Amino acid sequence: MEQGKLNSIADVKGVAVGHVTLEEDPSETEAVRTGVTAILPHAGNWFEEKVPAASFVLNGFGKTVGLVQIDELGLLESPIMLTNTFSVAAVLQGTMNWMLRENPAIGDSTSSLNLVVGECNDSYLNSMRRMAVTPLHAEEAIGSAHTDFAQGAVGAGKGMICYGVKGGIGSSSRVARSGEDHFTVGVLALTNFGRKEDIILTNWLADEPAPDKPDGSVIIVVATDAPLDSRQLKRLAKRAAIGLGRTGTSISNGSGDIIIAFSNARRTPHQANEAFEASRILRDDHPLMNELFQASVEATEEAIYQSLFHAKTTTGRLGRVAEKGIFN
Amino acid sequence: MEQGKLNSIADVKGVAVGHVTLEEDPSETEAVRTGVTAILPHAGNWFEEKVPAASFVLNGFGKTVGLVQIDELGLLESPIMLTNTFSVAAVLQGTMNWMLRENPAIGDSTSSLNLVVGECNDSYLNSMRRMAVTPLHAEEAIGSAHTDFAQGAVGAGKGMICYGVKGGIGSSSRVARSGEDHFTVGVLALTNFGRKEDIILTNWLADEPAPDKPDGSVIIVVATDAPLDSRQLKRLAKRAAIGLGRTGTSISNGSGDIIIAFSNARRTPHQANEAFEASRILRDDHPLMNELFQASVEATEEAIYQSLFHAKTTTGRLGRVAEKGIFN
Amino acid sequence: MEQGKLNSIADVKGVAVGHVTLEEDPSETEAVRTGVTAILPHAGNWFEEKVPAASFVLNGFGKTVGLVQIDELGLLESPIMLTNTFSVAAVLQGTMNWMLRENPAIGDSTSSLNLVVGECNDSYLNSMRRMAVTPLHAEEAIGSAHTDFAQGAVGAGKGMICYGVKGGIGSSSRVARSGEDHFTVGVLALTNFGRKEDIILTNWLADEPAPDKPDGSVIIVVATDAPLDSRQLKRLAKRAAIGLGRTGTSISNGSGDIIIAFSNARRTPHQANEAFEASRILRDDHPLMNELFQASVEATEEAIYQSLFHAKTTTGRLGRVAEKGIFN
Amino acid sequence: MEQGKLNSIADVKGVAVGHVTLEEDPSETEAVRTGVTAILPHAGNWFEEKVPAASFVLNGFGKTVGLVQIDELGLLESPIMLTNTFSVAAVLQGTMNWMLRENPAIGDSTSSLNLVVGECNDSYLNSMRRMAVTPLHAEEAIGSAHTDFAQGAVGAGKGMICYGVKGGIGSSSRVARSGEDHFTVGVLALTNFGRKEDIILTNWLADEPAPDKPDGSVIIVVATDAPLDSRQLKRLAKRAAIGLGRTGTSISNGSGDIIIAFSNARRTPHQANEAFEASRILRDDHPLMNELFQASVEATEEAIYQSLFHAKTTTGRLGRVAEKGIFN
Repeated sequence: MEQGKLNSIADVKGVAVGHVTLEEDPSETEAVRTGVTAILPHAGNWFEEKVPAASFVLNGFGKTVGLVQIDELGLLESPIMLTNTFSVAAVLQGTMNWMLRENPAIGDSTSSLNLVVGECNDSYLNSMRRMAVTPLHAEEAIGSAHTDFAQGAVGAGKGMICYGVKGGIGSSSRVARSGEDHFTVGVLALTNFGRKEDIILTNWLADEPAPDKPDGSVIIVVATDAPLDSRQLKRLAKRAAIGLGRTGTSISNGSGDIIIAFSNARRTPHQANEAFEASRILRDDHPLMNELFQASVEATEEAIYQSLFHAKTTTGRLGRVAEKGIFN
Repeated sequence: MEQGKLNSIADVKGVAVGHVTLEEDPSETEAVRTGVTAILPHAGNWFEEKVPAASFVLNGFGKTVGLVQIDELGLLESPIMLTNTFSVAAVLQGTMNWMLRENPAIGDSTSSLNLVVGECNDSYLNSMRRMAVTPLHAEEAIGSAHTDFAQGAVGAGKGMICYGVKGGIGSSSRVARSGEDHFTVGVLALTNFGRKEDIILTNWLADEPAPDKPDGSVIIVVATDAPLDSRQLKRLAKRAAIGLGRTGTSISNGSGDIIIAFSNARRTPHQANEAFEASRILRDDHPLMNELFQASVEATEEAIYQSLFHAKTTTGRLGRVAEKGIFN
Repeated sequence: MEQGKLNSIADVKGVAVGHVTLEEDPSETEAVRTGVTAILPHAGNWFEEKVPAASFVLNGFGKTVGLVQIDELGLLESPIMLTNTFSVAAVLQGTMNWMLRENPAIGDSTSSLNLVVGECNDSYLNSMRRMAVTPLHAEEAIGSAHTDFAQGAVGAGKGMICYGVKGGIGSSSRVARSGEDHFTVGVLALTNFGRKEDIILTNWLADEPAPDKPDGSVIIVVATDAPLDSRQLKRLAKRAAIGLGRTGTSISNGSGDIIIAFSNARRTPHQANEAFEASRILRDDHPLMNELFQASVEATEEAIYQSLFHAKTTTGRLGRVAEKGIFN
Repeated sequence: MEQGKLNSIADVKGVAVGHVTLEEDPSETEAVRTGVTAILPHAGNWFEEKVPAASFVLNGFGKTVGLVQIDELGLLESPIMLTNTFSVAAVLQGTMNWMLRENPAIGDSTSSLNLVVGECNDSYLNSMRRMAVTPLHAEEAIGSAHTDFAQGAVGAGKGMICYGVKGGIGSSSRVARSGEDHFTVGVLALTNFGRKEDIILTNWLADEPAPDKPDGSVIIVVATDAPLDSRQLKRLAKRAAIGLGRTGTSISNGSGDIIIAFSNARRTPHQANEAFEASRILRDDHPLMNELFQASVEATEEAIYQSLFHAKTTTGRLGRVAEKGIFN
């Protein structure tokens, strides 16, 4: 299928991505190799203008925050934040701080707020117990979001390892067409899973692969401008699982493999005078739906590979190294 | 059914509850009326000795953290923490701090850690946007846990409102018997939901009921010493929803009604040399199972009422008052 | 809350209910006391004009057919059929025969067809192993549907027992109002669960209650004319579980307690030239939503009681008797 | 990974498969090309000795019967039957007849019975509206089960089409090893999905591919002798979805993609005097678990290809032809 112009999640108009990357060496045995990544669902006020969303938990050995409310109401009302496992609290706090500042009514004259934070365990390279990420880092990541963003060993992906080589942030997109209509599916993946021998891409090399980790993970964010409701977005999210599987993993026990999908084709106002909300959704049986499904599979598969292609060899705590994979 | 000795969740041997209650008046318009409650699943090391657990989301307008992993692995490896909606991050951080200190291997030589934090929105009485709860408060709540604990307007329940009167923390227990065997089901509820006119208990009075809130919640923790696995604990959790419904609520849209159930009859070691784990579970068709189900219904119903009985009239921000309900 | 005019599921315009009741005594030890009940979602062609639907499985010890597709597509495209456990195949066949006759394109030039059959186990009174229900009985039930239908020991309810007395078919409705808007929630229940001592209605008498059955069930169908999508209908279905719990049951292990909800406010055509479908749904945060939730609770509670009020003392196989409950 | 001796689901000791294949030409325009396949979970009495089981619905555009109870109790108590979409009722009836004959207590002195029937839509080749399958065919399929069974265009697979060529029944197995321990995962797939251009196997040829069908499906049965409980079997089932995705499909809208997994390592007696049941399950974090996951992926992938390799060019109704795929 055809890629979008940027071949990234930012091909879905309004979506932007920001990173904060931390790299410090506080002692001989400790190293900070981690960060925060923020995915903004659109260019407006996320709380005032919510968007349809859904999640699919492929393997739930993970600590992602915020899925309960997404599953119930089918709406996303915040950025989707990514970080390391032990920095979920700090990122949650920073995102809360940002959102409360932007929305003085929340928790005062209007209801509360649901935030979404996904995570992977980067403790092979990163001294995760130091919890170097602060709430301000989350705010910085949100504030720096752009349609033109870095991939590889950046942001939340700084310390991640995938298929035995350096992983991190990868993104890709596909355009689904049928007749006059066309929509984009963009994917961003935070990759931190898999053994060297599992990858399906042939001819890759890493002299000294990083060891298998007991507790990997991958967080996959699927964005689209197709008018889908939350039920349909759950279907789209399940196809991302298929794209993930295409890269070779058998989804190991200790991997938190979580997929979150949203559409910014329509925004639901936080409050409204009207009792009813008009919507327009794609028919499930229209050929475009299968095209969107395929786009979700393909963009996810490529996003995972892009996280490897963009990565750089990274040395972390205890002198550990995760090499860049070489594919030819 | 027969109550346990304490008529609380602490009738399940090993379970203890700790509170930190915050009450401050930093300005004329602001008031801190909130806190933290910790429920400890047993007296050992929770990470090293995990217990079977499950959740049931009756209404997911809520921000509870930690359910994804419980649903996948069927295990609880931390205390269950309760607080207000905007203090989830602080409590998550404090609980993380406690657990990392107690378990130096986590995130270093062994895998990561799943924490559970439930919340309700206490912003009618509490200046929730101040986020007065700190990580240390979470540690204090854990450290102060005891089988003899306060109920009503304490801990996470300090600022909560239920059925138009003062709510908060309530607890109750029931003993399920069949032949020689007997097991206990204990429930602790954090109550913050419902309109005055919905409560089923007759003859209650509150001169000036607090207004209906758009964004209530109730978190129900069900503990048992019966040998149940996670599948069965999910069944037990669903019965708590029935007990909740018996008190009169129709489970309003804006209420995050979350139930978490665990059994401490058996502990699963974090690591083991053996490939296999022996277990012994109650047969689903044994009469004791229905007794446990009924115990879950009854203890939940009473726990909710106990949160009202123990509460005290509380004045909060903007001079708002939630009166103690009078039942006769 | 206010009842609808008929106080039945048929207060939802377009909904009709048909019964076939079987009563035969083929031998001294055998008795046929069973039947079929059909609930028609609207007065049009159900396959050509599908309606939003959802299910909630409160306790899955049951054999209801058709929920997989409802959960995926959020649509109902057939009547909802009820019968005894061993007659599911016959009713499935008969409903298939009716639908294929009415829709020559199904399975030929267009796709296949999803049917919904719920069941309870009436083997205390009915010689269920005889499988007296035939496919034609299902067609008869569909063909005889009317807005004015019998309740109690009729149709699929002929042999059912509830709370130790004669159960069967019960129905009720409530009107949800807010400002100018009003919508109806109608419920039909097939009741076959519970022990005598569990019912909450006081002052009921049955000299010789029928024994507890290991394998009861209740099927609850919730209909509405409110414009809800499948996600919202699942929420409505969960509230029916609350209404069921209000009658006293703790949802025993062997009970298949299944709730199916649909809205006929909007119909989705089986095929369409347009890629998109316009819809108009109630906002989740509108006060009407909570009114609908309460309507679901109350109508379910009353529907269950109505199944007892309308029932008649019934003698079945092996001379067994289920007495009519006497409530005063 | 290493295949089992038979490279089929029957490598899981006790599992056997039976087929009935129907091929008739009742008129010039009609053709019967369909059948029934029975998968027996072990060599004992399935109702008296139930086995742990779970399901995963990858895409629920399907009519599979029996999943509600499997999801609740985590047990399989019958064969798993496969047939065409319109013959579910007949196969349900025949399986019921078999089971009631073998178990006189069911529906009399003991509880009822849950049956499992999966289906795909074979109406491109088969005159499905004729409903040529009878209840006796289901009994024949059960009675003829053997560890040495045919694959390809046989049984329920007779009329199925996959990736534009002739599909049907395929099977494969893998052995998971770790230290001294080894267990087998066997898969049987009924394949009826996918467009020609989606298959990943390179170098395949079919001169005139059968057209895409709007309403395909694949039913995947995963059997193992590893001691897993129902929660773990659900995890195994999810990995089969990954194996399916590896063959190229993006899981189209109209495809009912259902996975059912069971373990016959332990049998749960229907009735027991003891309140408790001892079990021994594999630890989730043991390396064998990941091996089993990989085995599920690989055996599923190969089972799907085997259904193509074994198939034969088949002419059906209206002179339609599904050619055997040629792979080199």
